[in-house]
Amino acid sequence: MTANIAAAKEALSHLDIEEREAAIRTASRDFFWYSPVLKDRLDHVMADFVVRPKTEAEVIEVLKVCYEHDVPVTTRGAGTGNYGQAMPLAGGCVLHLRNMNAVKEITPGRVVVEPGCLLKELDAACNEQGQEIRMFSSTWDTATVGGFIAGGSGGVGSVHWGSLRDLGNIIRLRVVTMEAEPRVLEFRGEELARVSHAYGTNGIITELELPLAPAYDWVDIFVATDDFPEAMAFADDLANQDGILLKLASVYEAPIAHEYFLRVKPHVEEGTNLVGLMVAPHSMDAFLTFLGRRPEARMIYRSDDHDWPRKPGKIFEYGWNHTTLRALKVDPSITYLQVRYAFPDHRELIEKIRAMFPGGEVMQHLEALRMGGKVAFAGLSMVKFTTEERLNEIIQMHEDAGAMIFNPHRYTLEEGGRQTVDDTQLSFKKEADPKGLLNPGKMIAWDDPDFAYDKMYAYPGMKAAE
Amino acid sequence: MTANIAAAKEALSHLDIEEREAAIRTASRDFFWYSPVLKDRLDHVMADFVVRPKTEAEVIEVLKVCYEHDVPVTTRGAGTGNYGQAMPLAGGCVLHLRNMNAVKEITPGRVVVEPGCLLKELDAACNEQGQEIRMFSSTWDTATVGGFIAGGSGGVGSVHWGSLRDLGNIIRLRVVTMEAEPRVLEFRGEELARVSHAYGTNGIITELELPLAPAYDWVDIFVATDDFPEAMAFADDLANQDGILLKLASVYEAPIAHEYFLRVKPHVEEGTNLVGLMVAPHSMDAFLTFLGRRPEARMIYRSDDHDWPRKPGKIFEYGWNHTTLRALKVDPSITYLQVRYAFPDHRELIEKIRAMFPGGEVMQHLEALRMGGKVAFAGLSMVKFTTEERLNEIIQMHEDAGAMIFNPHRYTLEEGGRQTVDDTQLSFKKEADPKGLLNPGKMIAWDDPDFAYDKMYAYPGMKAAE
Repeated sequence: MTANIAAAKEALSHLDIEEREAAIRTASRDFFWYSPVLKDRLDHVMADFVVRPKTEAEVIEVLKVCYEHDVPVTTRGAGTGNYGQAMPLAGGCVLHLRNMNAVKEITPGRVVVEPGCLLKELDAACNEQGQEIRMFSSTWDTATVGGFIAGGSGGVGSVHWGSLRDLGNIIRLRVVTMEAEPRVLEFRGEELARVSHAYGTNGIITELELPLAPAYDWVDIFVATDDFPEAMAFADDLANQDGILLKLASVYEAPIAHEYFLRVKPHVEEGTNLVGLMVAPHSMDAFLTFLGRRPEARMIYRSDDHDWPRKPGKIFEYGWNHTTLRALKVDPSITYLQVRYAFPDHRELIEKIRAMFPGGEVMQHLEALRMGGKVAFAGLSMVKFTTEERLNEIIQMHEDAGAMIFNPHRYTLEEGGRQTVDDTQLSFKKEADPKGLLNPGKMIAWDDPDFAYDKMYAYPGMKAAE
Repeated sequence: MTANIAAAKEALSHLDIEEREAAIRTASRDFFWYSPVLKDRLDHVMADFVVRPKTEAEVIEVLKVCYEHDVPVTTRGAGTGNYGQAMPLAGGCVLHLRNMNAVKEITPGRVVVEPGCLLKELDAACNEQGQEIRMFSSTWDTATVGGFIAGGSGGVGSVHWGSLRDLGNIIRLRVVTMEAEPRVLEFRGEELARVSHAYGTNGIITELELPLAPAYDWVDIFVATDDFPEAMAFADDLANQDGILLKLASVYEAPIAHEYFLRVKPHVEEGTNLVGLMVAPHSMDAFLTFLGRRPEARMIYRSDDHDWPRKPGKIFEYGWNHTTLRALKVDPSITYLQVRYAFPDHRELIEKIRAMFPGGEVMQHLEALRMGGKVAFAGLSMVKFTTEERLNEIIQMHEDAGAMIFNPHRYTLEEGGRQTVDDTQLSFKKEADPKGLLNPGKMIAWDDPDFAYDKMYAYPGMKAAE
């Protein structure tokens, strides 16, 4: 099966096609470079061309043409994913959905939107009706909603609403298949699992229906403690206060705030542990009451009343995957892990793991989130990278201690997930992408059903570096 | 200290005073008759007069006059409490706040309201701005917001927001003291505990500021199971689904639905266990997905799509304290308990207790609610009453098994609560009600600091039956 790139481009020439090399290179990259491992493997990856459909009909046309000419299609929004989700490993076509960005309908509790809409734009539209999206990635300012659903797992808001995979956090997805005659399907309920967080490997999302929450003027807060377990307990216990509405509760072990949060640095010591919070304005009295019960914790910033000469900006842009981004700007050797510390032993497990890395090689960055009704922590631990071997060893140490790792140094769904085959996604790919042209190399179960997960998967169809 | 009733009435004669005996009798009673024990003790209780202030200034005038003439003042809203909260044990004045019912201000996430506003009226006002109160009692249709805050603990909405005592579920209370010169105080934060759920024993609430939630057209649902633990697990597990927004999750052991829910009876068998739910409309797809995973559970009613010839009415009017009310109408021998089954052993504890009463003497009615961030159950168990001795024995059996009882067969704060002195409420009463005129007989710690809690408290100042 050889892609006939030229024929596909010719057939699609009436659409918005990008052929300039620099622009194609830009559109072929996401934030994979968070990982030195992925950077090493994927830095050369480049599509043959980029097409930017404006309508679902154009998406169908692109898929039909690419199917006919055996051209791989990798879909992207803004390309802010860290797992190489949007990297066109086999070249071919990058389907850029940025131009499909209409907010189609907003009613109490729900919105219908096209995938290329920026999270920021979507919230702006919802805000006009006093609503906002339940959760978003820390890349809210630049990321698209389709990219978040297809490539993300949760984020700001997950402390209240749980993860995207939880029932109710996605209502409906409209999907186009990659066949000779592409079909348009509508998925709800159990069917959502076929294509949500599937990296566009088995269908292209052309419309999303998502639940909304009420919009508030969230108060951004930093709380400092000298002791890490106290910072962790503060975030955990606060998130368990049923009457205090939060959107974010992040924990940063010292010296993260002092070393990497440049605008926070003048206000903290090297040994300061930090908690970043978004609190609903009508919960502020209750928050201050909670705070008053904890003399070990001091509020050093609140966005509605402070004297910082330089504002720190949005607090959520310190959390989730932005923490690592800030650290990378200061120290390019930094990379990270994604860890899950499950209730009820999450605090003990974190302390156990923290004790395993006393020298600062691993720095704890935690995000409180609900899992199955209980508050626990996601860890986006920062790691001072030395070698791949050591990184793998650190991951193994986490797993041996009982923490689950979603390895962000792998570009496949399975390795970045639970390291098991997702039969739902696989069987839908068999149906919806029979030629295996959608985002190739990202689903091991499709390429190599007998893969043993004893080493990093290397996609054999990867376009060679030139 | 003898009350000069005549002088007080004279001094207040320009206000809206009720002197007709039948009307005074009505205004001297609440829903104490849920309890045969309280009915036996309090049935004769009657105030000397009722006054209905229209403004805070009038409240101050009433308190000032009653203070001067040593007249007890018992405050009431609609009188829907079950603990005798609003019963004027020592006679005197009933301060009826029904006429102070203004909704003063609604902003995103909060409302300022006077105490006499009906919960229903308050919600109607908030609905105009797409908002609603976080929680309410099942007497929403008739109860006042002030009565709910001063005499209630939680209710419909607690499955999401926890209890009224949780930080953040009350923002501010404005309170008038009972002194020669009444003071007007504003309480927030830690100070709220002084007067919330204090039955008006230490101050009169004249204004409340409460948090709001978004208003939705909640879908009322009944789900049936043949097996009780499956019904309990259904409610518990559903309430732990972070992405499915609920306002109510009640569990009714068989044969409650068949025996006491007359409009439900044609749709269930004697052995049917029932789950009553309020689900946000935008969570319905997710709810149906959850339901589909549980073949043991069948949805027999949804308010937005059903073929019941006679509608059951609001689902929340089957839950919380309305369950007992419905049963009482069918079987006057029914009474109830208020039980707390704490996480994480709540299900096991309930099953243990259920096994202790195999003959139907105690029927399980559970309400899922959040306590300290975890979903657990409040039990409003129904009891077929025989004697006080047996009732006390049943209570003791619950406590011995490890369940906490809030005894609804007692009229004091302590006995209906945690059976300990509330120092915060007591010390504020010393300051705000030095003569002890507010709702006398309801705070044991004031009357009899050495009370041993070995038998039911009998208020010595109780007006004798004539």
